[in-house]
Amino acid sequence: MILTVTLNTALDITYRTAALIPHTTHRVTEVVERPGGKGLNVARVLSALGHETVVTGFAGGRTGDVLRELLGAGATARPADGRHGRRGRPRPVDALLPISGSTRRTIAVVDTATGDTTQLNEPGPTVSAAEWTAFLSCYDRLVPGAEAVALCGSLPPGIHVGAYAELIRRARAAGVPVLLDTSGEPLRRGVAARPDLVKPNADELALLTGSRDPLRAAHDTRRRGAHAVIASLGPDGILAATPDGLWRAAPPAPARGNPTGAGDSAVAGILSGLVERLPWPTRLSRAVALSTATVLSPVAGEFDATAYEELLPRIRVTEHPAP
Amino acid sequence: MILTVTLNTALDITYRTAALIPHTTHRVTEVVERPGGKGLNVARVLSALGHETVVTGFAGGRTGDVLRELLGAGATARPADGRHGRRGRPRPVDALLPISGSTRRTIAVVDTATGDTTQLNEPGPTVSAAEWTAFLSCYDRLVPGAEAVALCGSLPPGIHVGAYAELIRRARAAGVPVLLDTSGEPLRRGVAARPDLVKPNADELALLTGSRDPLRAAHDTRRRGAHAVIASLGPDGILAATPDGLWRAAPPAPARGNPTGAGDSAVAGILSGLVERLPWPTRLSRAVALSTATVLSPVAGEFDATAYEELLPRIRVTEHPAP
Repeated sequence: MILTVTLNTALDITYRTAALIPHTTHRVTEVVERPGGKGLNVARVLSALGHETVVTGFAGGRTGDVLRELLGAGATARPADGRHGRRGRPRPVDALLPISGSTRRTIAVVDTATGDTTQLNEPGPTVSAAEWTAFLSCYDRLVPGAEAVALCGSLPPGIHVGAYAELIRRARAAGVPVLLDTSGEPLRRGVAARPDLVKPNADELALLTGSRDPLRAAHDTRRRGAHAVIASLGPDGILAATPDGLWRAAPPAPARGNPTGAGDSAVAGILSGLVERLPWPTRLSRAVALSTATVLSPVAGEFDATAYEELLPRIRVTEHPAP
Repeated sequence: MILTVTLNTALDITYRTAALIPHTTHRVTEVVERPGGKGLNVARVLSALGHETVVTGFAGGRTGDVLRELLGAGATARPADGRHGRRGRPRPVDALLPISGSTRRTIAVVDTATGDTTQLNEPGPTVSAAEWTAFLSCYDRLVPGAEAVALCGSLPPGIHVGAYAELIRRARAAGVPVLLDTSGEPLRRGVAARPDLVKPNADELALLTGSRDPLRAAHDTRRRGAHAVIASLGPDGILAATPDGLWRAAPPAPARGNPTGAGDSAVAGILSGLVERLPWPTRLSRAVALSTATVLSPVAGEFDATAYEELLPRIRVTEHPAP
């Protein structure tokens, strides 16, 4: 089982409408709701790959109820031909903790003609000290049964900035590999707690290290404490700086589409490869193929299974000499 | 008791954010939810004026649950000093019918600096023939106990375009005065069913009659079947063409602010004056003072009670000679 942690879950709502024009009125033609937050997205992709997953974090209020209902139903928008589905595939197990605050909504307003997206993100609920304590005891019960743990996304208000560092120390004490995918100060503190993996994008790396050179920034991040750094570089693929070597992995051609969730799919690729004990180049091929197939999918945050299978043998992985 | 009908209720959500820029990501700093749809707004203002009200129409799904919960709690955003509240004032009685579809949301994105608003309106739920039949029998039970009926807003999908005409005929058969506030074809059909009052705005009048001259259009609307036409002309106030005479009523000065709900406040002013058997000039003063106090309120759709009381004696009502 792979455990994913999403402290700031969200109900992701997608609206389709004609071109968004500020200060006018718009008729929404299509509404799609799905459980969101990075850890939930990672778990969904892991499930599609056949892995057992457990999702934990917080859910509260009416929006939290809707999120859990959709999570239980496995209800994500999917083409009617079932091409993305797989009969009998495992479903993420819901180990979210109830909180008194209300789970946030995010609204993606997609211009029908161009696919351009305007994002509106509600603030997360404030988590109380008692709720955080309850979470820690739940986390400590779940971690020993996990093959790997992924800590994903932003921290909601009320949770201290060193929260991820604390969760990393507890996973490491239990001997379970832990991946961190966050940004800003929680990433900085988390890296210092020596996680097995971090997956920053180019902006997050630059903010952490002050360098916009991904290679230099990845090495610096390793020096700060991360054992392996998987830097997602958008259409350029992935740069991986690990104890075993340095690799770049890139798709055969840059993909055009909606990048929402591409980073989460990459995390799922890396984690599945880790627990399957695949060598680094195979993990990276999978991560890049999954994230590219997510960009290509007509449904935001889903990956196109056919595109994934076609892409997998075509990812270019190159090893770099040690610096 | 005054009955208001809202076939297409909505959960009105207001987001505050920095200036909306298409195709970028926005952090929402404040989220306010309130029960919406024109008839619910009218009932809320009538309650504030001390009138007993019953609201009917449809509510469904999780969003319908939230709407009914807020309606029951009387939960509308209000300044902390309680200036807009009145202890022990009546609250709208919930006689909404459950439906299998989900009540729509509307999202008003308010730019914090300027107050400019971008509106996103979800489509309403489709109402089945059986649900419409159930509504008619509920309506027929409520109407005989009402001093007046207000039919407000758009029709959700599935409801035939002559629905308001049908509700008008039933109210008239029961001898209960009926006001219609809608637009387009439902207004055209409704007018032909001879309602006691219609309250179009300038655009709705023009669409109905083909004339942008409010006086000419109001007379034409009376010829088409409406007994009295209360045309709301924005900052210019109201033009009333009635069997008893023709009046204009205007605020002392044009108000600057958010016009959301101003028309609904005018409907509440007219209806309260009707059931209190006030003369037309007094009804019109009340309608203009309420709608102006709604524009001036810092909370969209609420009226500023202090502004209302100050404005009431200052509304200019002028009678026009018959044409």
